[in-house]
Amino acid sequence: MRIVGNNDGACATRVDPALVETYLAESRELTLAEIRNIIPRDGRYRSILYDLMLEYPLRNAKALRPALCIATCRALGGPLEAVLRSAATLELYHNAFLIHDDVEDGSESRRDRPTLHWTHGMPIAVNVGDAMLALALQPLLDNMRLIGMGKALRILQAIARMARESAEGQALELHWIHTNEWDLTDTDYLRMVYKKTSWYTFMTPVLLGGIVAGASAEHLGALRQFAALLGIAFQIQDDILNLTAEGGEYGKEFAGDLWEGKHTLILMHAVRSASGTERERAMAILRKPRPSRSKRGHRVSPAPLSSRLLRSLERCGDLSAAGRQAIEAALAPARGAGTKSATDIRFLIALIDRYDSLDYARAVSRRFARRAEGILHRATWLASSVHGEFLHALVAFVVQRNR
Amino acid sequence: MRIVGNNDGACATRVDPALVETYLAESRELTLAEIRNIIPRDGRYRSILYDLMLEYPLRNAKALRPALCIATCRALGGPLEAVLRSAATLELYHNAFLIHDDVEDGSESRRDRPTLHWTHGMPIAVNVGDAMLALALQPLLDNMRLIGMGKALRILQAIARMARESAEGQALELHWIHTNEWDLTDTDYLRMVYKKTSWYTFMTPVLLGGIVAGASAEHLGALRQFAALLGIAFQIQDDILNLTAEGGEYGKEFAGDLWEGKHTLILMHAVRSASGTERERAMAILRKPRPSRSKRGHRVSPAPLSSRLLRSLERCGDLSAAGRQAIEAALAPARGAGTKSATDIRFLIALIDRYDSLDYARAVSRRFARRAEGILHRATWLASSVHGEFLHALVAFVVQRNR
Repeated sequence: MRIVGNNDGACATRVDPALVETYLAESRELTLAEIRNIIPRDGRYRSILYDLMLEYPLRNAKALRPALCIATCRALGGPLEAVLRSAATLELYHNAFLIHDDVEDGSESRRDRPTLHWTHGMPIAVNVGDAMLALALQPLLDNMRLIGMGKALRILQAIARMARESAEGQALELHWIHTNEWDLTDTDYLRMVYKKTSWYTFMTPVLLGGIVAGASAEHLGALRQFAALLGIAFQIQDDILNLTAEGGEYGKEFAGDLWEGKHTLILMHAVRSASGTERERAMAILRKPRPSRSKRGHRVSPAPLSSRLLRSLERCGDLSAAGRQAIEAALAPARGAGTKSATDIRFLIALIDRYDSLDYARAVSRRFARRAEGILHRATWLASSVHGEFLHALVAFVVQRNR
Repeated sequence: MRIVGNNDGACATRVDPALVETYLAESRELTLAEIRNIIPRDGRYRSILYDLMLEYPLRNAKALRPALCIATCRALGGPLEAVLRSAATLELYHNAFLIHDDVEDGSESRRDRPTLHWTHGMPIAVNVGDAMLALALQPLLDNMRLIGMGKALRILQAIARMARESAEGQALELHWIHTNEWDLTDTDYLRMVYKKTSWYTFMTPVLLGGIVAGASAEHLGALRQFAALLGIAFQIQDDILNLTAEGGEYGKEFAGDLWEGKHTLILMHAVRSASGTERERAMAILRKPRPSRSKRGHRVSPAPLSSRLLRSLERCGDLSAAGRQAIEAALAPARGAGTKSATDIRFLIALIDRYDSLDYARAVSRRFARRAEGILHRATWLASSVHGEFLHALVAFVVQRNR
């Protein structure tokens, strides 16, 4: 199988979905087997702790990070056995953060099944996430025996850097949401995404693969730049999918980013392009929180409660217009007055349509993907193998994917 | 100043509160200065991330872990400069976990001030906690230059072990709460507390101090046993304080453990001693969750809402007995029917009083403190200095403290 260049201006390589999907699936199997080795499988704590760590990794995940790590190592001539432990550790970290993200967002489902805190309660979910972060340290220490002290220490340093960069990116994004800051440029967005997505999802996996393979500083620099650019393209495509994905493949809530008031390149472009009046309305909408979702153990659904009350009082012959008003007013806070409404979200979507902000974001995403591809094409030192081909095909996959 | 033995059967050393408090305060100042060195203090992320990491450490905390770590190292003849970084890292870890604990429990205050998620929202609080856990890795890697590769690696291994042990202990406790399991022995309790409290609060600080000082395997073993025993005494005293502490010194919610349904030695003893009928009622109470507390951004207080409704309807002349009943029934779920009540908590307290469970717990706590003290008395290799004296005085402090 050969990935060939063509003249498509959007992306110079045609994606071979079969190659990307097969490579992802194969790396995922290898990674899961390694994760099973890392997680203790016997004794008293298996069913109450260690089995729960496997829940998310075993669901329908792409496992992109370990695949990137394995492909880079092997494209540089490094052996699979040497890199598997580091690749599995990345997947452990990622799934731990997913558990915490779900708690933060009060999400009900993850990868088409209930979230961990939904089935086991928040305290158990937070503890499983913390335990996975802790457990991920051990294989990185055991790496010393596997790949030697020097490489193992550089990997630990890379993980520490990744954690710091992504925490800073996350802090920036949360600060913008918290203060409803929209007076931002594309450069601000790119800095945030470089930290939050590129370091976490692309740069660290590629660096780990390179370190294990013993890549030179020059080659690591090129790989790092490739991953930084591709990470940005990936995040913008993620933002696009949130507003365009059809059916169940994507697996996240449609327009969830708008409900959350997230700073996507798309919405930032629409807000920047809007007229004074439009901008004012958009600001007022984005200032409002999303209506709170019910949590396990605290299921209070204000709307049905109110209708039930009204019906009961009507049956009792008890309800004057004034009485009805009193109930409506009393229930207003619980009903989520002052939170974003579906009308609000439709207004933001119309704004995005009016100013072609999706097309704008697509163009930026593809520009970054092309730059990533350029670096890869100049990296003639990468072995011509299925692993190098996967990296090439991934560039097109990132901006054309629907999941 | 000398700590002298006496004939008090409960505890063979008299606590010198001045020594313990002074030593804690001095170590705390040194630790805070070191934490300020570890946390980046300039640039774009200071106000939105790094300043928030200092919030909890700067509040009124005992900072017991770094004090234990410093005292052990110095009592073994190790230098202060070599141990400070490890001591500060322990305090960083601890405060990160406190932020996560507060989110889990929906706590409103910590050390007499609002919790981080209360002032900044849950997503920012979870991110600050994760960032602190991540940041704590860097000084442990930098330790290589400070104390050499061998010791630095053993400290990393000890931290990985601590994280795993406390996650297992936490998992055990949460599992018992989740399944309302009370058919447990003191041995079950001691295993849980050994993992959850001893490893985390006593054994790891003492081991880190010992490793930095270059203690022999034999001496490390004795210190480890001392810390395991003292940790158990400490946790039981913590459980006791939750039901006996006066005034603001203790700083936690009175009887919070009963509301949470926590498995304290006290409540386990009371349940085990209870008659069949009492036990049945206790089980029914413990099966119920505590009423949910309001969270920032979701302030719905069912009771005031209901009274407001009733008053409004009365003013409208709208309220028949049937109407009032309809409202009461409709609001029952939001009001927390099926959750623990104050009457329930009073029943559990009466049970604890009836079977002298507090005295039972006190006796067990002091037994463990005496065993810890015995080990310390045999450890003649500890330098006779203020550091060794602090360790001795701490034994009495642990079982006599009121905060």
